[in-house]
Amino acid sequence: MGWAIPFTKMHGLGNCYIYLDGCSHDLSMIASYPQLSEQVADPFKGIGSDGLILILPSTQADVQMRIFNKDGSEAMNCGNGLRCVAKYAYEHHLVNERRFAIETRSGLMLAEVHVRDGVVEQVTIDMGEPVLERARIPVAGAGGGERVIRDRLTVSGKEYTFTAVSMGNPHALFFVEDIDTAPIHELGALLADTHPLFPNGANIGFIAPISRHELRYRVWERGSGITQACGTGACASVVASILEQRLDQDTPVTVHLDGGDLRIIWQSDNNHVLMTGEAETICEGTYFQR
Amino acid sequence: MGWAIPFTKMHGLGNCYIYLDGCSHDLSMIASYPQLSEQVADPFKGIGSDGLILILPSTQADVQMRIFNKDGSEAMNCGNGLRCVAKYAYEHHLVNERRFAIETRSGLMLAEVHVRDGVVEQVTIDMGEPVLERARIPVAGAGGGERVIRDRLTVSGKEYTFTAVSMGNPHALFFVEDIDTAPIHELGALLADTHPLFPNGANIGFIAPISRHELRYRVWERGSGITQACGTGACASVVASILEQRLDQDTPVTVHLDGGDLRIIWQSDNNHVLMTGEAETICEGTYFQR
Repeated sequence: MGWAIPFTKMHGLGNCYIYLDGCSHDLSMIASYPQLSEQVADPFKGIGSDGLILILPSTQADVQMRIFNKDGSEAMNCGNGLRCVAKYAYEHHLVNERRFAIETRSGLMLAEVHVRDGVVEQVTIDMGEPVLERARIPVAGAGGGERVIRDRLTVSGKEYTFTAVSMGNPHALFFVEDIDTAPIHELGALLADTHPLFPNGANIGFIAPISRHELRYRVWERGSGITQACGTGACASVVASILEQRLDQDTPVTVHLDGGDLRIIWQSDNNHVLMTGEAETICEGTYFQR
Repeated sequence: MGWAIPFTKMHGLGNCYIYLDGCSHDLSMIASYPQLSEQVADPFKGIGSDGLILILPSTQADVQMRIFNKDGSEAMNCGNGLRCVAKYAYEHHLVNERRFAIETRSGLMLAEVHVRDGVVEQVTIDMGEPVLERARIPVAGAGGGERVIRDRLTVSGKEYTFTAVSMGNPHALFFVEDIDTAPIHELGALLADTHPLFPNGANIGFIAPISRHELRYRVWERGSGITQACGTGACASVVASILEQRLDQDTPVTVHLDGGDLRIIWQSDNNHVLMTGEAETICEGTYFQR
């Protein structure tokens, strides 16, 4: 026999999930989160989404977030999802303050909501410190403690330079003059998932600088291909720009992604990267499980 | 300023729409149905669907259906959508009988719901009479009043035979032994939208017969490409099979589509084709328009 469960569909820059609130509702009828994620994400016979996010009580933080991709696998973290969880938690009174902590599989994340008339319009997430050492990103090669800045790489007979950064997940960043002609398909397909240079794979990002406080960024995500927006990638694009001395620390940078804009700042005092952007509620209702 | 509206997402064999009930709710805040269809159908920033269906009062029938595709264009009719409208209308008491009429842009359609414990499990739609004359389907060529049965066609140096039928929209049907190796992409792309043989385009269908009461059917829909299910195409596949004397009139036929099964019967007494199949409610709730 089927059952019904309350849900909310939210997106951050077009990165959309079905959110279930395990703080307010009993989720015990759900036999398998991976299976439910596949079902609700189905665009034809489900609601349609990039996956399922659970908002749960936490013993370490104010709330806990668990993310399941549309293939049922559990993800570590998601910048766009964090902003939506923060908006939901504040608007549904799961938290009382405008600054609070969210437990994820990759650690505690600090969120701050920016509110107008009771509605969360923007959310800032403290994405922590970037990882810059070659061995920890990881990028193959000698000098594991060194940074990876303007490294050379030859692909299909063409030479490129890239800078690599981890924001919890590895990013390789290529600077281009024109984002529309950037070789995203070519390099993304060859480098993201199976290239020996990136033992854990890498998100392959392309940056077209606009000014000292603005850039255009597109990304091929490992395991996914081209996506509308990647929050950790937007952070990595700013860190890489600063490492290449194209931008400055402590200066807010607007990153234009396919799905919308994020504002990123890399603070010199605590070495943390802050990400600010929108979170949107698309619909809320009841999902019927057959 | 934004507004909110109640919606239901339903599907018939994976062909899914956002349904708005204009009999029970005020829809006057909607400035443009085409624009709203594009917005709600967006898989990233909307709910995600094949489009928008409005259930409205009718002066000629029990209820009226209007269908908007995801590109905002208004469609004439949709077999999968009709079954969902019938389920919704009965379960929400917009009609009192189990047999009722639905007004569409292509005329009045008769529906019958099959109910268990107050839930509509199957819906039968009277799809009317098939159109068999060449000029009315339409298929180019001499003898406009003749039927189009086992006509020869040469594509890229290969010869094929096809039978053509209109169920309000034109269908060309090709019989194959194995549905998995049927040339759907090749013939679909070349014939559906721009071939001189089909002045209004045609849905290009492939039929693999299984028995005297069962067949497998896949389709490339004009303007859309390969779809999960096409209700009029399932009807056309049975009519074409009967025209080629592979199946019989007055015998129910199960058509296996990618998205699920339909049962089709072509009645000899009134020349009508009846289609029976499922309609499913995925979720219901409130959509927030910014």
